[in-house]
Amino acid sequence: MKTIFDHRSIRKYQSTPISEELLSKILDAGTRASTTGNMQLYSVVVTRDEANKSKLAPLHFNQPMVKEAPVLLTICADLNRFNRWCELRNADAGYDNFLWILNAFIDASLFAQNICLAAESEGLGICYLGTALYNAPEISQALGLPKGVIPVTAITVGYPDHNPPLTDRLPLDAVVHYESYNANTDERVNKLFAEKEALESSAKFVVENNKENLAQVFTDVRYKKADNIYFSEKLTTFLKEQGFEI
Amino acid sequence: MKTIFDHRSIRKYQSTPISEELLSKILDAGTRASTTGNMQLYSVVVTRDEANKSKLAPLHFNQPMVKEAPVLLTICADLNRFNRWCELRNADAGYDNFLWILNAFIDASLFAQNICLAAESEGLGICYLGTALYNAPEISQALGLPKGVIPVTAITVGYPDHNPPLTDRLPLDAVVHYESYNANTDERVNKLFAEKEALESSAKFVVENNKENLAQVFTDVRYKKADNIYFSEKLTTFLKEQGFEI
Repeated sequence: MKTIFDHRSIRKYQSTPISEELLSKILDAGTRASTTGNMQLYSVVVTRDEANKSKLAPLHFNQPMVKEAPVLLTICADLNRFNRWCELRNADAGYDNFLWILNAFIDASLFAQNICLAAESEGLGICYLGTALYNAPEISQALGLPKGVIPVTAITVGYPDHNPPLTDRLPLDAVVHYESYNANTDERVNKLFAEKEALESSAKFVVENNKENLAQVFTDVRYKKADNIYFSEKLTTFLKEQGFEI
Repeated sequence: MKTIFDHRSIRKYQSTPISEELLSKILDAGTRASTTGNMQLYSVVVTRDEANKSKLAPLHFNQPMVKEAPVLLTICADLNRFNRWCELRNADAGYDNFLWILNAFIDASLFAQNICLAAESEGLGICYLGTALYNAPEISQALGLPKGVIPVTAITVGYPDHNPPLTDRLPLDAVVHYESYNANTDERVNKLFAEKEALESSAKFVVENNKENLAQVFTDVRYKKADNIYFSEKLTTFLKEQGFEI
């Protein structure tokens, strides 16, 4: 519980390597997460080699921790292993569709989160890189991912070299609904986002980016509509190339 | 770490309720998970009311723990709250596409796994119900989910009334690749699945279902191709109805 509440994303790492034994232990912890029908529809590619990190860094938009962290984990949704097993056993697999992409994404995410919490409980720090989905085709090529395998997220892991403050969250009311969903009325939304909008850091983002408010920093600067559409189409094309019918 | 390695899915529960305080604490633990751009693209609907549980039970194929567990959590990918905020702030949101469905599914899954581990660390037991995706439209209607909200998974939570053995997993080698992906050659696949195929429980499944091998139990009995296609199309249709372009 303490590990969970102490989580912060770590973006600066000591150069200290992670021992083989510890790395195996945290990856093994990943596999204890629940998984659809015990099919374990995930894989992880471990990158420690400097040359390989340099190849992946631009695909994560050159975020410095990709090269600085001793270990980069690329967490993948993996239908390849299970499908190959079915082929070899004369079993007619039907897992090349949208439902099973989502099942595998859930499996991979639970696996990832177990790895992160296991790492943090051993004094390591982690940071998720959402960029894995943006450049999934190029990452896939760099790591040699076969059909049926899709990068879901990447995680940097290492001993922390800073201790950033806890990140703000919306009030718990924002995400918890009892018995049925509370409609997001204007009043409710204004109330739920008030604290976040009042943060000093939020005001700073708004001024720096010359926007009217924090929401516009998200839609016009951080995650722009045109980029979202571009990367979404890129991802759909890639999933089809990887053998999924969507 | 101990909590992670002790995990087993709990399908029998004591009738003891979960205190409000403890429930809030484990849900709060959920919100400490990493989230895309700190956008918290998830929600949870808590079901404790008996009548509501009875309404949901058939949508989870009447698995008995839905009604027996004191709490059922329906974890959702939620773009509604963020989109409504953008609308109110004159910000042009572009999160109604495939990329953001996946971002929200990852956010929701990390949130879910934190909740499960927090619950387990407090002596509670949990079980994920993959059925949430199969009957997403009906569950959505039962819970009053608005546009932009999709059930991802459901979780039963309560004090355990049995202590099942740990579930088998593939050898760690199956899921961990160093530097690049190890192709799933016939030899590798045969080796990775050997232990699972040799389990007494596997042999039992094969005989009971009158199949040639364990893979066929998956493809012909548990997750049949025709069902997969049916539920996948149902899910795609539902996502479009919920406002996503896919």
